[in-house]
Amino acid sequence: MPGNTIGRNFAVTTFGESHGPAVGCVVDGCPPAVALAEGDIQPDLDRRRPGASRFTSQRREADRVRILSGVFEGQTTGAPIALVIDNVDQRPREYDAIRDLFRPGHADFTYHKKYGVRDHRGGGRASARETAARVAAGAVARKYLAEQFGVRIRGCLTQLGAIRASVADWDEVDNNPFFCADPAQVPAMAQLLDELRKSGDSAGARLHLCASGAPAGWGEPVFDRVDAAIAAAMMSINAVKGVEVGAGFASVAQLGSVHRDELTVDGFATNNAGGVLGGITTGQDILVSIAFKPTSSIRIKGRTVDTAGNPADISVTGRHDPCVGIRAIPIAEAMLALVLTDHALRHRAQCG
Amino acid sequence: MPGNTIGRNFAVTTFGESHGPAVGCVVDGCPPAVALAEGDIQPDLDRRRPGASRFTSQRREADRVRILSGVFEGQTTGAPIALVIDNVDQRPREYDAIRDLFRPGHADFTYHKKYGVRDHRGGGRASARETAARVAAGAVARKYLAEQFGVRIRGCLTQLGAIRASVADWDEVDNNPFFCADPAQVPAMAQLLDELRKSGDSAGARLHLCASGAPAGWGEPVFDRVDAAIAAAMMSINAVKGVEVGAGFASVAQLGSVHRDELTVDGFATNNAGGVLGGITTGQDILVSIAFKPTSSIRIKGRTVDTAGNPADISVTGRHDPCVGIRAIPIAEAMLALVLTDHALRHRAQCG
Amino acid sequence: MPGNTIGRNFAVTTFGESHGPAVGCVVDGCPPAVALAEGDIQPDLDRRRPGASRFTSQRREADRVRILSGVFEGQTTGAPIALVIDNVDQRPREYDAIRDLFRPGHADFTYHKKYGVRDHRGGGRASARETAARVAAGAVARKYLAEQFGVRIRGCLTQLGAIRASVADWDEVDNNPFFCADPAQVPAMAQLLDELRKSGDSAGARLHLCASGAPAGWGEPVFDRVDAAIAAAMMSINAVKGVEVGAGFASVAQLGSVHRDELTVDGFATNNAGGVLGGITTGQDILVSIAFKPTSSIRIKGRTVDTAGNPADISVTGRHDPCVGIRAIPIAEAMLALVLTDHALRHRAQCG
Amino acid sequence: MPGNTIGRNFAVTTFGESHGPAVGCVVDGCPPAVALAEGDIQPDLDRRRPGASRFTSQRREADRVRILSGVFEGQTTGAPIALVIDNVDQRPREYDAIRDLFRPGHADFTYHKKYGVRDHRGGGRASARETAARVAAGAVARKYLAEQFGVRIRGCLTQLGAIRASVADWDEVDNNPFFCADPAQVPAMAQLLDELRKSGDSAGARLHLCASGAPAGWGEPVFDRVDAAIAAAMMSINAVKGVEVGAGFASVAQLGSVHRDELTVDGFATNNAGGVLGGITTGQDILVSIAFKPTSSIRIKGRTVDTAGNPADISVTGRHDPCVGIRAIPIAEAMLALVLTDHALRHRAQCG
Repeated sequence: MPGNTIGRNFAVTTFGESHGPAVGCVVDGCPPAVALAEGDIQPDLDRRRPGASRFTSQRREADRVRILSGVFEGQTTGAPIALVIDNVDQRPREYDAIRDLFRPGHADFTYHKKYGVRDHRGGGRASARETAARVAAGAVARKYLAEQFGVRIRGCLTQLGAIRASVADWDEVDNNPFFCADPAQVPAMAQLLDELRKSGDSAGARLHLCASGAPAGWGEPVFDRVDAAIAAAMMSINAVKGVEVGAGFASVAQLGSVHRDELTVDGFATNNAGGVLGGITTGQDILVSIAFKPTSSIRIKGRTVDTAGNPADISVTGRHDPCVGIRAIPIAEAMLALVLTDHALRHRAQCG
Repeated sequence: MPGNTIGRNFAVTTFGESHGPAVGCVVDGCPPAVALAEGDIQPDLDRRRPGASRFTSQRREADRVRILSGVFEGQTTGAPIALVIDNVDQRPREYDAIRDLFRPGHADFTYHKKYGVRDHRGGGRASARETAARVAAGAVARKYLAEQFGVRIRGCLTQLGAIRASVADWDEVDNNPFFCADPAQVPAMAQLLDELRKSGDSAGARLHLCASGAPAGWGEPVFDRVDAAIAAAMMSINAVKGVEVGAGFASVAQLGSVHRDELTVDGFATNNAGGVLGGITTGQDILVSIAFKPTSSIRIKGRTVDTAGNPADISVTGRHDPCVGIRAIPIAEAMLALVLTDHALRHRAQCG
Repeated sequence: MPGNTIGRNFAVTTFGESHGPAVGCVVDGCPPAVALAEGDIQPDLDRRRPGASRFTSQRREADRVRILSGVFEGQTTGAPIALVIDNVDQRPREYDAIRDLFRPGHADFTYHKKYGVRDHRGGGRASARETAARVAAGAVARKYLAEQFGVRIRGCLTQLGAIRASVADWDEVDNNPFFCADPAQVPAMAQLLDELRKSGDSAGARLHLCASGAPAGWGEPVFDRVDAAIAAAMMSINAVKGVEVGAGFASVAQLGSVHRDELTVDGFATNNAGGVLGGITTGQDILVSIAFKPTSSIRIKGRTVDTAGNPADISVTGRHDPCVGIRAIPIAEAMLALVLTDHALRHRAQCG
Repeated sequence: MPGNTIGRNFAVTTFGESHGPAVGCVVDGCPPAVALAEGDIQPDLDRRRPGASRFTSQRREADRVRILSGVFEGQTTGAPIALVIDNVDQRPREYDAIRDLFRPGHADFTYHKKYGVRDHRGGGRASARETAARVAAGAVARKYLAEQFGVRIRGCLTQLGAIRASVADWDEVDNNPFFCADPAQVPAMAQLLDELRKSGDSAGARLHLCASGAPAGWGEPVFDRVDAAIAAAMMSINAVKGVEVGAGFASVAQLGSVHRDELTVDGFATNNAGGVLGGITTGQDILVSIAFKPTSSIRIKGRTVDTAGNPADISVTGRHDPCVGIRAIPIAEAMLALVLTDHALRHRAQCG
C-alpha cells in the first residue's frame, strides 16, 4: 500500500489537503455492531480544533464530521466507514506570496523534489489539517477499545520549550489550554507563548501518553512489535522528532538490576518497560513520550531559496500555532488508539 | 502480513529461534542484476557475531550464511533470496532451570500470555539471535544502495551507561570493541564493562546512525514517512526503547528560529531535521539516535513468578552480553538499509 | 488490509452503500503530474450508469463524480485522490418488505451470518452500486496507462444467455445497448431481454476484454502473477463466476503443439496465452473472458427463509437489470485498468 | 509485498529455483498450539512428487521436508514456520542447449524481458518445482483447518485432453495415477498419455476441487471476496488458464430462476453458487474448477527465437510431465487450503 494507509486489520486511509474541499478518511476492518454516530467522533475533533484559545491557530474550522458509509441504524456494519470533514475557512490566497519559495522546516522542498508538482496552499497534503481525519478515525478506534476492552487513552503536555511539567493530576488536563496535568506550570507556559507570539518565534513540546486497560498479548514479533507500530504512528505525526516507550532514553544510564521490571504475585513491581516486553503488551499501562519540534511557520525572517534556486528571505505570516505540540494531544491519542485496535484484531486473528 | 515481514517493495521475512536448527530470511523484491555472493554478506555478520571480545557474549557461532535462491551466476535474478545461517553452538539444556520462570525484562511473560506455548530456550524467537537474519538481509540492501546510489550507512556508540561519547572520528569505530568514534572514552567504557561483568549487572547504550548519499525524495506521506519507517525499524530491534531523528528530543527546547534549517544556494545551512522533512528525505545525511535498555539477562538475583503464578527468585547465568547495545550497531545499520531500500523502490514505483 | 482495497502500489479503497448518502473511493499511489479532471472520469461513469436503455435498471442516478483531493491545478499531485459520487435516487423504503428475508442468490444470507448486522437496503455494501466507485478509480488508471504507455482497454459482450456473439467489430460496441461487437446478434439479444422482463426472469452474460499496448514485463511471480491479479479483480465483480485468460478452458483439449505460441522474428505467431506467460505480460494483447451469473433479483417467486429461520416465498420487485453482465463492461474494463496500473508501478519499483 | 507471498493473516512466502540448492517457504501467522511434525507435511509432498508413475516426470526427488523453525515440542509456537526441501536430482547441464532460446509457452521470454537476467536451468523460479513449497505450506493450513473446523479439501481430474470424467466416486481418486474419481475413464486416459509420450506432444487438464465443512462467513467484501482470493490462488499455479466457482461459465446460459439457490429450512436447495455468495462462504461445499493448458515442454519441434532475436528451432527434451495438470491436484488443494485458512483468521480478526 502507498503511504496514506495505516493498520493491517483495522486500516485507516486518509485523504485531503489543507485548502482543498475536504479532508477525510476510510476506516476499513472495523468490527460490526459497534454503536457509532457523529456525536461519538465530534468531541475529539473539537479538542483538536484550532481557535480554541489565543495560544493556537486562529483558523476557524467547524470540523463537522459526516459519516458517509459503514454505519446503519446507529451501528457499524463491518463495511468501510467513510468520514468527511469539509474545509470551510480556506484562504489559499494567503499563500500566493510563498508559492515559489521553500519555507524552512517545512515539507515544501521535499514535496517539490519528490513529486515535481506541489499544492503549496498551506502545505497542501503536508498540512497538520490532515490530522483531523486521523482524529476522526481514532475516535472510532477509541470507542471500540473502550467498549470491548475498557481501554482508556490519555495524553498530556510534559514540556513546552524549556518548561517541564509533571504528570501530576490527569484531571487538570482539560482545565487549561495546554493539556497540562501540572497546573503549577501553566502560568509560565502562558507567558512563554505570549512572548513567542510577540517575537514571532515558536517552541517545541513534549507529550506523554498513557493507555490503560489493554490486556497482555497484543503485538506481533518481530517487526510488527506493538511498540514499533507505536513509534511509526507517532513519528508519522507532523513535527514529531522523537519517540520513547517506558523509560526511553533514560534507560541507557540505568543498571539492568534497576531497569528490569521484577514480577511479583501482585504483578510487575515497576514499569520501566512502558507496558511492552518483546513487542507484546504486558497488561500494564502503555507509556509513550514524544517530542515535537518548534513550529516552522514563524514570522522571524529567515533565509531560503525559491524553486528556481535563487536565494530569498522569508517570513511566514498567517494563522499558525506558536507550538504545534499543544493541539497534537488528541492526534497522538488517536494514533495510539489506531495502533492498539489494529493489534487487538491481529491478535484475535492469530490467537483467537 | 503477520509481523515477521518488513518492507513493501523490498520485503524481508525472517525466521528462526535461538536454539533451533537455523535462523534465516527471505528477501523479496530485490532488483535484478545486483552482484551478490556470500562474501558480500559475511562481513556484516562477522561484525555482529558474538565472542569477538571479552565484552560480548561468549557464545561461539560461526554465523556462516548460505544463499539458497535468487542468485544465479553471481547476480540477483529478481527472485526471492533465501539466506540461512545454521545455529551450531546451541545449548538448550542451559535453559532447563528457567523453563517455567519468567525472566524479568524479557519477553517470556508476554509470549506466554500471547501464545500459550513458548520455546523457552534462550528466548526462542525473542532472542537477539534472530537479528543475524536481519544483518544478512541488510547486507543485500546495503550493497544495492551503495552501488545504485552511493549511499553509505554507518553507526557508532555514543553512550554506554552514563558515559557519553562524541562522534569524533568515524575511522576509529573499528579500532575498539565498542564501535566508539571517540577513542578518549574507550578506557572508561572498558572499565565499566569489566565492573559490570564482575557485579553481574548490565548497562544500556545509545547509538548514533548516519546514512549519507540518499537523494531527496524518498518517503511516503503521510503514514509511511521515511522517518516513521525508521522509527518502527529501530524500535523493532530487541531492547530499543527510544528513537530520535535529527535533533530529536532536544528540539523541544529549541526555538523555531534555531531549529528550522534555512536553505541557501549551497544547500541547507544546518541539519536539525536529520535529513527528513515531511517524511521525505532532503538529500542531507539521515541522522538517527536510538536507546538500548540494559541487558535483562543478569546474574544479580531478582524476583519473579513462575508460569503457575508462584513467586520465585531468579539469577540468569549463561553467555550474555553485559550491554546488548554494543553488538547492535550492525543490526541498526542493517535496519536503516532495509528501510531506505524499500523507500527507494517505492519512490521509483510512484515517481519513476 | 481488510477487503475494500485493491492494489499494492496503486491502491484503491472503495466505500459506500446502495442507499446511503454516497459511494466513493480513495486512489493512493497515483503518479504525480497526470492531467486529471472530473471530465476524464465522467464518461466511464455514464457508460455504467443505469437507466440508459430499457434493458437496464431504471434507477436514475446522475452519478456525478467530485474530486475531493489529490488534484491541483488540473494535475495529480501524488497525494491520495478521493472521489465521491452522491446517491440521489435512493428508495430505501422499497426494501422494507424484504428486511428480514434472505433473497436467494444474494449476499443477504452471508452478510447476516458474517456480521450479524446488515444494511438490507438494496443490498447495502453488496450492491452493484459500489462498482460506480471502481469505475471512477479505473478511469484514473486508464488515463495514466493511455498517456504513459499507450495502453487501450476495451470490452464487449460475447454471450447473453445462450446467444453467443463474436468479437467481430470493436467499433460496433457503442452502437447498441448491449456493448456487443457483433451487430447480427443484437436483435436476438433485445428479444431475449424483452421476454425476460416479461417473464420476470433473468439471464447471464459472458464478456470479453482486451488490453492492447502493455509492454512485456508486467507481473510478479509467483503469487502475484498479473493473470492471478486479473482473476481476482474480475471475480471480485458482483455476479462473476468464472475467469479465463487467453484460450482458457478451451486449452484443456488443445495439444501442446497447438497451444504453445511459437516465437518468430515478427513476434509471437499466436496468442493462446492471452498475453501472459509465467504471470508476466508478453507484450501481446491481454485477453480475458468472464462469466456473469443471471441476475438474482427476479420477480418470479422463489423459496427462502427469514432471519428467524422460517420458510417464506419471495418475489423481488424494484428496479433491477435483467442481465447484470451488460452494464458490467465498464466495470470489468476498470478492474483491468486498475490491475495493469498497479503492476506497471510494481514493475518500475523492482526493475526500474 | 512483492509477489512471492500469499495471504494476509496467514502468509506464505516461497523461495527457490528448480536447479538451485533447495525450495522452501516461510509460513507466518500460523495459530499457536497446532500439533505439527514433518510427518504431517510429507504425505502431501509425496502425492505431488514426480516419478510416481510412468505418466509423470521421471525426475527423482525425495522431497524430504525439514522444519527449521516455528515448532517446539511438536506444536506450533506462533512464530514463523520455515520449511525447506532440498533439491537432490538437479541436472542443470541438461539445459545448456536452451540457455539462449526462449521455449514457446514458457516464461523464458517474459523473465528475460522483465529482469534482464535469467536462471534458465529448468525454468528457474518459473518451474513447477516451486509448487513443492506451496504443498508443504498447504499441509500446515490443511491441518489447522481440519482440526479447528473439520474442513476437508479434495481434488480430482475431470478432464484430460478431450476426455471428460465425472466426480463419480471420491474414493477412487487414490486408486489410479490420474487422481480421477471416474474409474471408467482411466483406461482411455492412460492410452492418451501413452500416445502423447510417443508423439512427444502433451495435453491439458481440468480439475475439480471441493472444500467441505467451512462455516458460513469467511470472505471479505468487496475486493477480497473469498472467491476472488481462490481465483487468484488458482491462476497463480503454473499453466492454469481458467477458474470457475460453482456453475462457472455454465451459469451464463442459466435462467435466474434456475441458477439462484433457493433457501429452505433444511438449507440451500442447490449449490450453483459453489458455496460463495457476495464473496462470503455460505457453509455449503466450496466448488472450484480450473483449466490447465497442455505442457509446453514437448519434444515436437517448434519455432522460436534466441535472446539475440535470431530464429531457431526448438525441441524440449528432458524429464517433463506430458500433462502438468495431473500432479497439480495436491497443489490446487494446497492453494485452496491457504486461502481458506487466511480467511478464517481474517474473519476472526474482524468478527471475533
